[in-house]
Amino acid sequence: MLTHLTIALDMMGGDYGPRSSIPAAVSAVNKHANLTLLLCGSEKLIRERLSDLDSLNHPRLIIKHCSEVVTNSCEPASALRNKKSSSMRVALELVKSGEAQACVSAGNTGALFFMAHYVLKMLPGIKRPALISAVPTEKKQPVYLLDLGANVHCDAETLFQFGVMGSIVAGQAQNIDKPKVCLLNIGSEEIKGHDTIKQAAQMMKATPQINYQGYCEGSDMFSGKADVIVCEGFVGNVALKTCEGIAKLIMYKFTKALKKHVFYRLLALALRPIIKKLYKRVNPDQYNGASLVGLRGIVVKSHGNASNKAFLAAIEEASREVERCIPEKIQATFAQITAKPEHSSSSLEN
Amino acid sequence: MLTHLTIALDMMGGDYGPRSSIPAAVSAVNKHANLTLLLCGSEKLIRERLSDLDSLNHPRLIIKHCSEVVTNSCEPASALRNKKSSSMRVALELVKSGEAQACVSAGNTGALFFMAHYVLKMLPGIKRPALISAVPTEKKQPVYLLDLGANVHCDAETLFQFGVMGSIVAGQAQNIDKPKVCLLNIGSEEIKGHDTIKQAAQMMKATPQINYQGYCEGSDMFSGKADVIVCEGFVGNVALKTCEGIAKLIMYKFTKALKKHVFYRLLALALRPIIKKLYKRVNPDQYNGASLVGLRGIVVKSHGNASNKAFLAAIEEASREVERCIPEKIQATFAQITAKPEHSSSSLEN
Repeated sequence: MLTHLTIALDMMGGDYGPRSSIPAAVSAVNKHANLTLLLCGSEKLIRERLSDLDSLNHPRLIIKHCSEVVTNSCEPASALRNKKSSSMRVALELVKSGEAQACVSAGNTGALFFMAHYVLKMLPGIKRPALISAVPTEKKQPVYLLDLGANVHCDAETLFQFGVMGSIVAGQAQNIDKPKVCLLNIGSEEIKGHDTIKQAAQMMKATPQINYQGYCEGSDMFSGKADVIVCEGFVGNVALKTCEGIAKLIMYKFTKALKKHVFYRLLALALRPIIKKLYKRVNPDQYNGASLVGLRGIVVKSHGNASNKAFLAAIEEASREVERCIPEKIQATFAQITAKPEHSSSSLEN
Repeated sequence: MLTHLTIALDMMGGDYGPRSSIPAAVSAVNKHANLTLLLCGSEKLIRERLSDLDSLNHPRLIIKHCSEVVTNSCEPASALRNKKSSSMRVALELVKSGEAQACVSAGNTGALFFMAHYVLKMLPGIKRPALISAVPTEKKQPVYLLDLGANVHCDAETLFQFGVMGSIVAGQAQNIDKPKVCLLNIGSEEIKGHDTIKQAAQMMKATPQINYQGYCEGSDMFSGKADVIVCEGFVGNVALKTCEGIAKLIMYKFTKALKKHVFYRLLALALRPIIKKLYKRVNPDQYNGASLVGLRGIVVKSHGNASNKAFLAAIEEASREVERCIPEKIQATFAQITAKPEHSSSSLEN
């Protein structure tokens, strides 16, 4: 465990802004004695909320006043150009300057992606950052899904690089030696899918740093067959949000069915704690937010309508990534891959 | 109700072949007195199974012997070239010749798509056939999702045409006057997504035959906000199969959680019927298979590992589509759209 850790928080992002980020920040410093948080946002709002929680003078909660906010409807390119004093931008600049070792935001994903890319820059040799998150499976270990929406479309080399980065994240987080990597496709047979996926499969097969296991279908995503599942951002985002949608539907139908009979209504009361726990387990909110990987710095994105608990989980995820030195390990692995041209991605594309 | 109806069945497709298609066919003719089924496949196998079920001489079960089978690993283009005597091809030819009014297969989706496209041909003005299926929602009415994998990538005009066809299918099936149509995207704001989706949105907005409601995210798919959700085949296929995956996961976790305590173990016994029913409701298998729309004929695709019940549901879905004259209605609506160039899709693209 690191002796000291500083994380910058975008306090103004997400649907609730300081209403969920402040309680989460207070819980985090109370829970982790080695943690200092830099609270980026409207000083007035932050002071008000902190004082409500009797934490105005906490020595490890430091306010960094920002006069602007990136809203959800803000076009990413315009946020990058015009919101230089926003809480999101300031939090990222604190990581760049080294004042913070990571940052967390629940704000506009597109803007966060654009700004983080611009401010922190890519690690050498990596084409695009990816949004990665852990999703529960039937096994003890979750599966790491990337990209979740940072890159709408991806070429084969980008998918290949996502496979490498996903392996490092899953391997470090779950302590697995050779995480099993699959490409998400519309069939498990080799003939299925489009050319980009087929090319990415060839590149993964030829790279010893990836334990490639073939294609995986949506129905197999949660079986534990894979530790890492790679897809382009549009598909990953739809898949993750569909999980949220169907989990809501199942809970709704189940509760409705139970309410139909007096007998089941009594059962429903007894079952309430178990249903609540289950919903939390399959709800992506609980899964520590998503991380942007491939950058020269650690950025964790909390869900837009994240609760206090989810924002706290995202802060803790950022701390763990600092301790695991994820960017350094990604950089080292890419240096290894490009040092052996016979396995390099570019030689495979030619 | 039509006085008489003839449907051709590909008996050899899917994971179980005649083991599930024969019991389904026998149930169908016993249940529907106006139905004749043309059983395409190995005469020997079909006769054996029919005789097991005491239905060898049923007057409305007619065997059409086929010497070949399209397997799941068969490349679609090769199936089209080389499997001219396959049960799948023969079933489609029976629709083309008018001997049958629809056909049903549980076989290789890609091959079925290629063959159906080649044998039956497109309706005038329609670029691509789409695979459409009904998925449950929180409301009484399901939502119709297309495309589910027939077209890996789609251009804007194809997505637009899917919106029109989806409206007709949902409107006819659910008796809705103006079905609400959404485009599946990675955000609900207009700025989200890629150019193809944005173009398709413009085309839908400008067409009175579509009641366009904007973008819809994966998390909103089952809320009942839309009657029809349009996306390209890769995304639709992943979304549908992810539903299957997460439903399995939830059931698995729920049953496991219940087994942990004696009290809950007793509850689990009491709940078994309700859980079974719920799983069936969210399982796409139960949703009558998927239909290929846009062709000059009716083709219903049953799930690859379809049970007898699912194959029966697919036969019944095919019957209903014949009664609803879906291809004729699609043709009439497209004639209307192209007759008014100010609303036509091509004028919008320029």
